[in-house]
Amino acid sequence: MRGRGDRLEGLLAERELDRMLVTDLTNVRYLTGFTGTNGACVCGPGLRLFFTDFRYTERAAAEVEGWETLTIGNDWLKGIAEHLEGRAGFEDDQMAVRVLEKLKEKIPEGVELVAAGGRVEELRRVKDEGELAKIAEASKMTDEVWAWALEQGFAGRPEREVARATEARIRELGADPSFPAIVAAGPNGALPHAEPGERVIGSGELVVFDMGAQLDGYCSDGTRTFATGEPGEEARAVYEVVRLAQQAGLDAIAAGVKGEDVDSAARKVIDDAGYGEHFGHALGHGVGLEVHEGPRLAQRSEDVLAPGEVVTVEPGVYLAGKLGVRIEDLVVVAEDGLRNLSSLPKELQLVD
Amino acid sequence: MRGRGDRLEGLLAERELDRMLVTDLTNVRYLTGFTGTNGACVCGPGLRLFFTDFRYTERAAAEVEGWETLTIGNDWLKGIAEHLEGRAGFEDDQMAVRVLEKLKEKIPEGVELVAAGGRVEELRRVKDEGELAKIAEASKMTDEVWAWALEQGFAGRPEREVARATEARIRELGADPSFPAIVAAGPNGALPHAEPGERVIGSGELVVFDMGAQLDGYCSDGTRTFATGEPGEEARAVYEVVRLAQQAGLDAIAAGVKGEDVDSAARKVIDDAGYGEHFGHALGHGVGLEVHEGPRLAQRSEDVLAPGEVVTVEPGVYLAGKLGVRIEDLVVVAEDGLRNLSSLPKELQLVD
Repeated sequence: MRGRGDRLEGLLAERELDRMLVTDLTNVRYLTGFTGTNGACVCGPGLRLFFTDFRYTERAAAEVEGWETLTIGNDWLKGIAEHLEGRAGFEDDQMAVRVLEKLKEKIPEGVELVAAGGRVEELRRVKDEGELAKIAEASKMTDEVWAWALEQGFAGRPEREVARATEARIRELGADPSFPAIVAAGPNGALPHAEPGERVIGSGELVVFDMGAQLDGYCSDGTRTFATGEPGEEARAVYEVVRLAQQAGLDAIAAGVKGEDVDSAARKVIDDAGYGEHFGHALGHGVGLEVHEGPRLAQRSEDVLAPGEVVTVEPGVYLAGKLGVRIEDLVVVAEDGLRNLSSLPKELQLVD
Repeated sequence: MRGRGDRLEGLLAERELDRMLVTDLTNVRYLTGFTGTNGACVCGPGLRLFFTDFRYTERAAAEVEGWETLTIGNDWLKGIAEHLEGRAGFEDDQMAVRVLEKLKEKIPEGVELVAAGGRVEELRRVKDEGELAKIAEASKMTDEVWAWALEQGFAGRPEREVARATEARIRELGADPSFPAIVAAGPNGALPHAEPGERVIGSGELVVFDMGAQLDGYCSDGTRTFATGEPGEEARAVYEVVRLAQQAGLDAIAAGVKGEDVDSAARKVIDDAGYGEHFGHALGHGVGLEVHEGPRLAQRSEDVLAPGEVVTVEPGVYLAGKLGVRIEDLVVVAEDGLRNLSSLPKELQLVD
């Protein structure tokens, strides 16, 4: 973790900040390794301070590396404020208005609080080898859970039952779901954010199945669309368009490519097939300690891909009242292409 | 839900606010019934507006009652800002600094944004009959899960396995854990915030078992300490002190009593027995849509209990390196006492 603090220190210099206060717990975990529910850190030139309370002193001793741990007793904000100096950045996208007001009352004279959210998120975009190994393991587990779920069969079971059983399986394997699994069959497939409900999955329906695992902090995210027996001509046609769009998206990925251009490459296939208005979301997003983080593969995204970033590629077509198709892989950006962490086939699979 | 908007409108008048913007999702759910992940509302004299995006239009139609639903397309904050007027309260304890800055750019001329967090939380303290029924059901489920867990036995199993099995059982019954279950045996019982680990529960140990279920949004929370066979004299003595302290806390509860005085009533028993320094947390907290909410039963709490509030009563004694005991009931404050939602016995139970 030591190198992460150093990289943050580098960003501070660029922004002419003397200190950076990090309060977002995921960012704190990224920098220090701390997994508890109350922690913060202050970074500056040669300065690495981690703050927690007495409940977590022991855990910090076991987890935090490369940062000096200070246990704060009574006044949390004051205990932190004492270590701020000069131009002190804070995470304005995370800190509540009331907390900032209280913090202002407690900073030493001469300290200027500067809105500087998003710095650690920038660092988090590119994963190191250890992080990539964890994400790959979470993704492998997800693929295994799919194989298991396919053995159980879908038709005749309520969506919710399939989703809950899948989440239970992920937990049995020692991970957590990285988000509530989506199982959306038939017309429900056209509602990409529908919660799995009591509707029983029929035969000859498309089933959009989106899930992921969080293992040792790191997330996976993937989607396959299955058919419970022959789904008919239109469903097959839509499926093929999405499959080709997804491949076009994958083919466009490489270091140095704009996220917007990757989105466009996939979107063009769907547009050309006449389904453009039925693909109402972005192509993909970064995945790491959070299941949604940077970079964005989307129209108007200004992100440029870098080696070691991990992104989803997940085009979809949703025909209201009828069906939905989404196919999503999780990939690592490489200099001249990508490494695909998802191993399930992408030809339409007919299942029970 | 209609009455809740009316009660909020009443609070606005007291504070000389023309509008209240509610952005905390739990508060939005409380006011409107909406359970999705993107929503906000604006309340004013005779005005009940609920905002969401296209993903949730259908869900809002099914869930939201007594509030007019507006679906916002592109610019979320602008879509809301247009409906603010005069002195407009916002939830400063919840809204991020950056969001407030953006909101300021989008409010119509003449609108003054006023920090006013905590208003809906005030309303949430006193539960109505429907809410009490849900909390009672969640608490009943928790007691059933304990009975089930006792049948499986504790000794010889890792803490983590017992905790995970309990959470799985709660999910099987159609609820979610309201927090990760705590199973802390022997010396681990002295670390009230230890995560259940790989340590195998031994014989003749005390096991602190703290868990709750969230059912249809509403939480339960309870703790029992069991013994895996005869735990010895000191353990029994500590257990008895905590049991008597817990009873003293329960006996002190009634409408009109200060939260601080309830805490003191229980704390005195522990102090008198010489264990005062080993009870390092507050006696209790409110429970509802969140497992920790108002009021607080604690030293320096200024809360005064009211009928219909739901609180935990959970004294504990923690002897570092040795053992811990905590006993927690969930109770409804009544005019002249309480209704106890927890049904498990409080005499020390020896289990397998």
